[in-house]
Amino acid sequence: MCPSAEQAQRYRARMQRQKTVVDAAIARADQTKGLLLILTGNGKGKSSSAFGMVARALGHGMHVGVAQFIKGRSDTGEEAFFKQQPNIIWHVLGEGFTWDTQDLLRDQATAQQGWVVVQNMLRDPTIDLLILDELTYPLKFGWLNINEVLTDLQNRPPMQHVVITGRAAPDALCQVADTVTEMRNNKHAFQAGIQAQIGIDY
Amino acid sequence: MCPSAEQAQRYRARMQRQKTVVDAAIARADQTKGLLLILTGNGKGKSSSAFGMVARALGHGMHVGVAQFIKGRSDTGEEAFFKQQPNIIWHVLGEGFTWDTQDLLRDQATAQQGWVVVQNMLRDPTIDLLILDELTYPLKFGWLNINEVLTDLQNRPPMQHVVITGRAAPDALCQVADTVTEMRNNKHAFQAGIQAQIGIDY
Repeated sequence: MCPSAEQAQRYRARMQRQKTVVDAAIARADQTKGLLLILTGNGKGKSSSAFGMVARALGHGMHVGVAQFIKGRSDTGEEAFFKQQPNIIWHVLGEGFTWDTQDLLRDQATAQQGWVVVQNMLRDPTIDLLILDELTYPLKFGWLNINEVLTDLQNRPPMQHVVITGRAAPDALCQVADTVTEMRNNKHAFQAGIQAQIGIDY
Repeated sequence: MCPSAEQAQRYRARMQRQKTVVDAAIARADQTKGLLLILTGNGKGKSSSAFGMVARALGHGMHVGVAQFIKGRSDTGEEAFFKQQPNIIWHVLGEGFTWDTQDLLRDQATAQQGWVVVQNMLRDPTIDLLILDELTYPLKFGWLNINEVLTDLQNRPPMQHVVITGRAAPDALCQVADTVTEMRNNKHAFQAGIQAQIGIDY
């Protein structure tokens, strides 16, 4: 592990070049705005990434709203933890996975009532960061109208950040987003017979 | 948006089939163990996903350790936020990106001192979840010996979860992991000239 003088010099030169590239990219990125971020794909980490941004925002003294559309269980660590914190509003708007209710009219009505709650937060400039957890499912199943959702997102306060999570984000949503990350499973413990783990999966 | 009786019936039948599949998969996944999770790829969301799991674990009353190996800035929201919480130990072990220090010997020494701190947490069964944020970089640059790291990970307490973040996770690490998620950028605000946003990116 002990580098020669030549290795150390090459390392230094390589890092100097890298620094030039990075500094130039940072200098070019000079705009600030409320972002729309989509976290999608079949991999683990979509909701947990959104909740990590919640922690970041709260750490900066920002105000956060959370709306959870689909919620398979009522004992999640994120809800228990964040509900105790100041500067956060937490709404559970769903009734669990659609394969548990099996009632289309009821699922539609639940989602549409939920969207009214979200609309109020999308009009509230005191909310700096808004998490719409698993919003892609009500869109995918047609419980919410995508055009209405897009219009409400576009009319939000200009500095408000919105993070939407869930599999299979609709193309129309990705097109208007600033950042779209796809989480891909290269390997998942669940496939190896390991059950959802407390603190990791919920 | 108003479904016919036939549509509602088809929906119900589809969701019943889905429920059978989901319930069977849940029944098969009956093991519990300390997981090794890798969050890698070039996309946004690796560290924030790890910090979301921190929130989940704290919400369940679990104890958490965090080690940050590379840290480009000292004003992160996650550190400000979580350092105020009970049941968490937070270590900053890096000195910023390697293209800022440009000194290989110093970077090696810093990483190796950091690993000693991690080794103590990897031997501590009271830590339920351990985050090794951006550990992939010291491995990639050869500051840490991958075999030593793998051995220490394998000898940890059996119920301790470890989450490792960073681009370009080494294959040897992915092979021993339980879950590997790759975050892929389909689109990133930074590429459109938008600077790193407070509460979102740091």
